[in-house]
Amino acid sequence: AETGVTLSGYGRFGLTYLDTRAVETQVTTRLRFNIDGKTETDSGVTFGGRIRIQHTNGATDATANAAMLYASFEGFRVEVGNVNTAFDSAGLIYNAEMGFVDSSYGDPQGAFFAYASGATPANYTGVFASYSMGDFTGRISYVNPDQTVSGSTEELSVSFDYASGPFAVSLAAYQDGAGLANNDGFFLGAAYTINDAATVGLNYIDEDSAGGRVVTLYGNYTMGATTLRAYVADLDVAGADTAYGLGADYDLGGARLSGSIQSGYAGETWADVGVRFDF
Amino acid sequence: AETGVTLSGYGRFGLTYLDTRAVETQVTTRLRFNIDGKTETDSGVTFGGRIRIQHTNGATDATANAAMLYASFEGFRVEVGNVNTAFDSAGLIYNAEMGFVDSSYGDPQGAFFAYASGATPANYTGVFASYSMGDFTGRISYVNPDQTVSGSTEELSVSFDYASGPFAVSLAAYQDGAGLANNDGFFLGAAYTINDAATVGLNYIDEDSAGGRVVTLYGNYTMGATTLRAYVADLDVAGADTAYGLGADYDLGGARLSGSIQSGYAGETWADVGVRFDF
Amino acid sequence: AETGVTLSGYGRFGLTYLDTRAVETQVTTRLRFNIDGKTETDSGVTFGGRIRIQHTNGATDATANAAMLYASFEGFRVEVGNVNTAFDSAGLIYNAEMGFVDSSYGDPQGAFFAYASGATPANYTGVFASYSMGDFTGRISYVNPDQTVSGSTEELSVSFDYASGPFAVSLAAYQDGAGLANNDGFFLGAAYTINDAATVGLNYIDEDSAGGRVVTLYGNYTMGATTLRAYVADLDVAGADTAYGLGADYDLGGARLSGSIQSGYAGETWADVGVRFDF
Repeated sequence: AETGVTLSGYGRFGLTYLDTRAVETQVTTRLRFNIDGKTETDSGVTFGGRIRIQHTNGATDATANAAMLYASFEGFRVEVGNVNTAFDSAGLIYNAEMGFVDSSYGDPQGAFFAYASGATPANYTGVFASYSMGDFTGRISYVNPDQTVSGSTEELSVSFDYASGPFAVSLAAYQDGAGLANNDGFFLGAAYTINDAATVGLNYIDEDSAGGRVVTLYGNYTMGATTLRAYVADLDVAGADTAYGLGADYDLGGARLSGSIQSGYAGETWADVGVRFDF
Repeated sequence: AETGVTLSGYGRFGLTYLDTRAVETQVTTRLRFNIDGKTETDSGVTFGGRIRIQHTNGATDATANAAMLYASFEGFRVEVGNVNTAFDSAGLIYNAEMGFVDSSYGDPQGAFFAYASGATPANYTGVFASYSMGDFTGRISYVNPDQTVSGSTEELSVSFDYASGPFAVSLAAYQDGAGLANNDGFFLGAAYTINDAATVGLNYIDEDSAGGRVVTLYGNYTMGATTLRAYVADLDVAGADTAYGLGADYDLGGARLSGSIQSGYAGETWADVGVRFDF
Repeated sequence: AETGVTLSGYGRFGLTYLDTRAVETQVTTRLRFNIDGKTETDSGVTFGGRIRIQHTNGATDATANAAMLYASFEGFRVEVGNVNTAFDSAGLIYNAEMGFVDSSYGDPQGAFFAYASGATPANYTGVFASYSMGDFTGRISYVNPDQTVSGSTEELSVSFDYASGPFAVSLAAYQDGAGLANNDGFFLGAAYTINDAATVGLNYIDEDSAGGRVVTLYGNYTMGATTLRAYVADLDVAGADTAYGLGADYDLGGARLSGSIQSGYAGETWADVGVRFDF
């Protein structure tokens, strides 16, 4: 029976620019440590848990977040507490992100629960289950924003990923996202790996709380240590501009130097350049 | 001179039921990490300290608690700061606990200080000393709820454990428990190990702040991977029901599946089922 | 590429005495854990970050502080976020400290930023750079107390250390220390190592927010496991007494027992005795 505690995480720092804020160029930092404890039983079931300690620029100190507990056996995994959610875990949903901050206007714009690195509401409780077999993964999650009162509006979400050769698809949906009644969301994504160097993908995201659906077309191209990234995203809201972004990663062999220039739905300009390293 | 930092702890999750709360059945979780740093001097004295990071369901994030510092040499140990207390450390005092939450109505019902996993009062300061030799352990602790003002009411507690063959006894007392004047408590416990499988014990606990003394009779019986647990507890307060509990542990080889059904002093019903694993 | 997370820190506990506080003798404790994550790239650049978890007596729980991120390459190092500052890092500036609490009235008495073990202001952001070559180290730091508003008063500081045989000198200055306009400070220190056992030094510290310059003469003398320490400090403020201190460290081989008696600028008496151990 294997047992123990491990530490891992990442750091990132650099400059970000946004032309709609008082000070346009700011220093942006994040440092994350995941503390993972686990025990494997004689029958091969692993029981474990995670607390994350993270600081992002702007906060006065770091947060040690609410715990996630889990059990896993072969391809099956169940989480309780501060869980990953099915929608947020969908395989292709954040693939249009770029820069050292890993951001994209082509991301979902609505409200739904996800694993919380910061504080959760008091009595927030989730249950998550996933199953992976070969190239298929299915997930379902349920979150009660306050399990100590009856009548809370609970979020339910599901997602499915599948890959076959160069094709990958991902499908996800939530009901009453973020515990808001009638706040539903749907996601369908597909990606095609053209060759060793190039991938293109299309994401369709329809969320009630976003004001309209988002369609994001993105692509990546790798040449040696450099990966170029681009996306175009359309938000179906009156007056919204087409958003787009251009980014590049340079592999430092253990870290990456990343930058991007992006234009948002209100015509605002975002840019970032910095490093990201995992440990 | 050995030196270093180690991480250890436990996780537990499952369902608890209590028929007197608004939502009777709730998900209950806890994840604990102890961070221990220590150095052993050339003469064999170990100096060390602990900070605990813990999250229990209901809290919005995890707490990194007040530090405990210690020195130890062979059977002798001294702690300062957020210390273990003598009464709370008495050997048999929590032996009637059961279920994955490790609870019992047969536990002490009064108010006294213990090592705090959450926040302490500001300027809370304790000193604890223990000595173990063979089957004997003695402990004494002193806690000042606020050492920066004169006139604080301080808690003093002592405890002694002794074992001889199948017999074990434990004796403990506190004066001005939890820093409350005239709040005294006394504990006497005895346990008898009948054979490899069965143990019975009797605890007598008399605490001013509990309203009356508690007498708890408990027993455990192990068959293979299964341990059955039972207790009956009497609280000498007018109108109090007799409390009792039935529980079972199933050893998963590195974790345990535990459950219990308990009836409290007001006739309420508590039940829990879940897993507990150490790492 | 080397990568990983390491834990280190120190603990200290003992008694402190100050004749001007309500309760003169108090228990004093501190426990510090540094969590350091880093990755070394193929080209030899190290990227890393630190979050510190620390508890000092008086606080209700421990603080996980704001992150410091860094990059280093050979003798060059850059930090961002909750950075070390140049002035606070000057080589000889705290050399008159003594006792297990490592304190001295001969320390700087003014206001300037330093690496924060506790909470920083929201949006506090620093940048620090240092370069070491042989016996020379130079540092520069810049701290913006709130990078999200324009017009913040920023602290700039520099320091230089140099050693040549038995001589060591250190020079440092800050402008607008602690983000306070016109709060400037200057430090010049020199130390001479007489032989294997004895060191003497002189520190000159002139800070606007201290009310007057401080001159500190100090010396240490080691005999076997014992190191004796002494200083005299003069604060050039009307009515200020001459401060002085006598201290001793005893090396326990992995820990030290330290004590001091010090007299402050208002004639107050401070004393401490306790242990300090690193891990």
